[in-house]
Amino acid sequence: MLLAPTLLDSLAAIFPGALSTEPAQCLVYGYDNSRRQAQPDAVVFPTTHAQVVALVQVCRETQTPLIARGRGTNTTGATVPVHGGIVVSFERMNRILRIDTANRYAVVEPGVLNGDLQAALKPLGFFWPPDPTSSAYCSIGGNLACNSAGPRAVKYGAPRENTLGLQAVAGSGEAFRAGYYTSKGATGYDLTRLLIGAEGTLALITEATLKLTPLPAHKRVLRATYVDITAAAAAVSRIMAQPVTPCALEFLDDEALRLARKHGGEHIPLAGAMLLIEVDGEADYLPPAVEAVAAAARGEGLIEWHAANDAAEVEKLWAARRALSPALRAIAPMKINEDVVVPVSRLPELIGGLRDISNKHGIPIVNFGHAGNGNIHVNLLYRPEDSAQAAAAPHCLAAVFDLVLGLDGTLSGEHGIGLVKREFLPRALAPVTLALMRRIKAQFDPDGILNPGKLLPDLDTT
Amino acid sequence: MLLAPTLLDSLAAIFPGALSTEPAQCLVYGYDNSRRQAQPDAVVFPTTHAQVVALVQVCRETQTPLIARGRGTNTTGATVPVHGGIVVSFERMNRILRIDTANRYAVVEPGVLNGDLQAALKPLGFFWPPDPTSSAYCSIGGNLACNSAGPRAVKYGAPRENTLGLQAVAGSGEAFRAGYYTSKGATGYDLTRLLIGAEGTLALITEATLKLTPLPAHKRVLRATYVDITAAAAAVSRIMAQPVTPCALEFLDDEALRLARKHGGEHIPLAGAMLLIEVDGEADYLPPAVEAVAAAARGEGLIEWHAANDAAEVEKLWAARRALSPALRAIAPMKINEDVVVPVSRLPELIGGLRDISNKHGIPIVNFGHAGNGNIHVNLLYRPEDSAQAAAAPHCLAAVFDLVLGLDGTLSGEHGIGLVKREFLPRALAPVTLALMRRIKAQFDPDGILNPGKLLPDLDTT
Repeated sequence: MLLAPTLLDSLAAIFPGALSTEPAQCLVYGYDNSRRQAQPDAVVFPTTHAQVVALVQVCRETQTPLIARGRGTNTTGATVPVHGGIVVSFERMNRILRIDTANRYAVVEPGVLNGDLQAALKPLGFFWPPDPTSSAYCSIGGNLACNSAGPRAVKYGAPRENTLGLQAVAGSGEAFRAGYYTSKGATGYDLTRLLIGAEGTLALITEATLKLTPLPAHKRVLRATYVDITAAAAAVSRIMAQPVTPCALEFLDDEALRLARKHGGEHIPLAGAMLLIEVDGEADYLPPAVEAVAAAARGEGLIEWHAANDAAEVEKLWAARRALSPALRAIAPMKINEDVVVPVSRLPELIGGLRDISNKHGIPIVNFGHAGNGNIHVNLLYRPEDSAQAAAAPHCLAAVFDLVLGLDGTLSGEHGIGLVKREFLPRALAPVTLALMRRIKAQFDPDGILNPGKLLPDLDTT
Repeated sequence: MLLAPTLLDSLAAIFPGALSTEPAQCLVYGYDNSRRQAQPDAVVFPTTHAQVVALVQVCRETQTPLIARGRGTNTTGATVPVHGGIVVSFERMNRILRIDTANRYAVVEPGVLNGDLQAALKPLGFFWPPDPTSSAYCSIGGNLACNSAGPRAVKYGAPRENTLGLQAVAGSGEAFRAGYYTSKGATGYDLTRLLIGAEGTLALITEATLKLTPLPAHKRVLRATYVDITAAAAAVSRIMAQPVTPCALEFLDDEALRLARKHGGEHIPLAGAMLLIEVDGEADYLPPAVEAVAAAARGEGLIEWHAANDAAEVEKLWAARRALSPALRAIAPMKINEDVVVPVSRLPELIGGLRDISNKHGIPIVNFGHAGNGNIHVNLLYRPEDSAQAAAAPHCLAAVFDLVLGLDGTLSGEHGIGLVKREFLPRALAPVTLALMRRIKAQFDPDGILNPGKLLPDLDTT
């Protein structure tokens, strides 16, 4: 689409020196980590809430698509402007407005980087739990839009469990506040959680009040290898059934270990499955807490057990996990990376089923992820130049989702739906549930200008 | 209103032996702990989801109000049928359908009593954190409808933090599922949290998947008295700023202590303020955890510090808190019991402001509650037979709410809005926020048959 000259005049007035329609600059705001791409007609860089309000209002008048963007680290195409329009990059709206440790909250603008917030909180003895692997360069606004979590979610929860309130502008152009400055509240409907995970389809978040957690002083990292996934999954269930919840409980399957060892070095063990476990706490009670987790991790099928004794060893234990992403990308640049979730005890059925699907479709599948939540990153390693694999990939992916849903699981644990999974949404959600979501969307964004073509499937596909 | 004979025929067909229109029986389903009352036209007792679906559909056809009811323990009139219609008592839909400790969840019908669920979970080493004082006789469905919590929320959260998924029937008659069987999920809008705290105005919950937490083996109870509320609030902030979060952090002001001592005995101390603190954990690391909390509780203004050494002493420490409710009721049977919330550090301003309001309006105010969340039960002890007090009470209450909102607080922490606070909602929520809530309500309940006259104020009052 082409933006009307009058709209461009309005944008120029709202965003002096903070608007670009230059195709080369627009280009870099048209893709994200999904490797999908589309060209926006303009990019704007708000620095104030009032600018965002004015922006939504002129876009509504002109029926112009508006796509909120943090730092484009998402993997689902959620920020790709498939219908053109205006990308709203929040990168300049990046102030930490208030850190109130006495009341355990921080007020931030959406463009603050997750890592910058953590760095500001650390000297004060606090942290904000959501910790995507991209934390150094992803924004809080993006974390909220996708309900993005990371390893720590197993103990501390995702953004929905760590956000007290929001300020936002609905697609209708209406600015509003939701939630509280307090850790408890029962005053009306929960609009805060409704906006979190909505991927910018209901409203643009312009300020967030985040719940802070005191930072534990110490961490111990443990590694356990098992003869097979069944033994490892049983260990995960045992660990999650005792009172000391680890702050990370990560999993690699045998294929992932083989790959990590090939690219990461011989110190990475081979086994049927491996768990990486972190336990946090204060110096004087960490040892018994670690022992409680270790006791639960031991059991039938355990091969080897190892606790890191110093920083170098910690680094070595995590190396297996860190070696994976580059290794996977080297093998299969077009890998499909899913983040399905199943109840923890169903992990053996998931991994077994994935193996069958891999064999049937001739596409290698490698699995690792957040075992404590049953949240597994399933990597379909297909080469697009292999026509048989390219043809099989969509069927293979559909089979993966059907397997997951049959195990009482869901499509996404922390990546969201975006562009790439929305056609699968009707497999996960019944027509009535989807219809309610559509009706809610229409209340916030009556003209459908916010992130069109994302999350909810087109009507004719449901 | 009178129910049409055809509707009564339909109800009789849906609820054989589980329908009453007998005025004496209807009477007891027309009031709750708010001491408000209204007469319903019928009471039904569903035992299945299918019955609830059929019920909502016939009520929608006939535009008949439907009021969901757990056990009527709420304090806001949320279950009082002010527009008549049919009370849906969930007391017979009380099965625990599944307890899955390996995956940390339980599936329950809404009529299960909170205490019965806790009793079923305890031998398995788990609990469900929300713990209203009424837990022995309140229902899970009611807990979800009101987002009801209790002392443990300071560490473990309220129902919104402890529910994975729901099955429900919207006021439209549409049955749907929301949420997950997993502890993580980013698949579409969060309808689960939207229904929690909605007080039965959006949908009737027919099944809930609750997140379970491993039960800590041990608890220590501590008591600290302070010279004044400022010293006690500073201690609360210090306690909440270190990594060991207590599982209860309760507060009594000087008036509450005086009253408790008068009714509970001389062992209850007099002081400017008292904190009751519980710390939970395993035997081998509870002592250092208790010491960490104790260190934070000590500081300027501490009078006395005491840790219970055995069950009898625990009982004695809690006696002060337990003596309060009967004492308050003896003095002022018509007391107004609010449950406002402010950020923890604003507690001294809250208590100071309440004292001024009390003096100005000539109505004694006694305060106690969940200090760790800043959630204070403010008790206005007025005698309705005192005409000056009766006239002053509404102004006094409005002044309390204005004070709270001015301190960045909110109207309710865990009781909800119901009938008695809805006229105050426009003080807490801006017109746009309220309008969005109304539009959401209209999507779930287009004819407004679910719990009319609750939570959202009538249109002409906003």
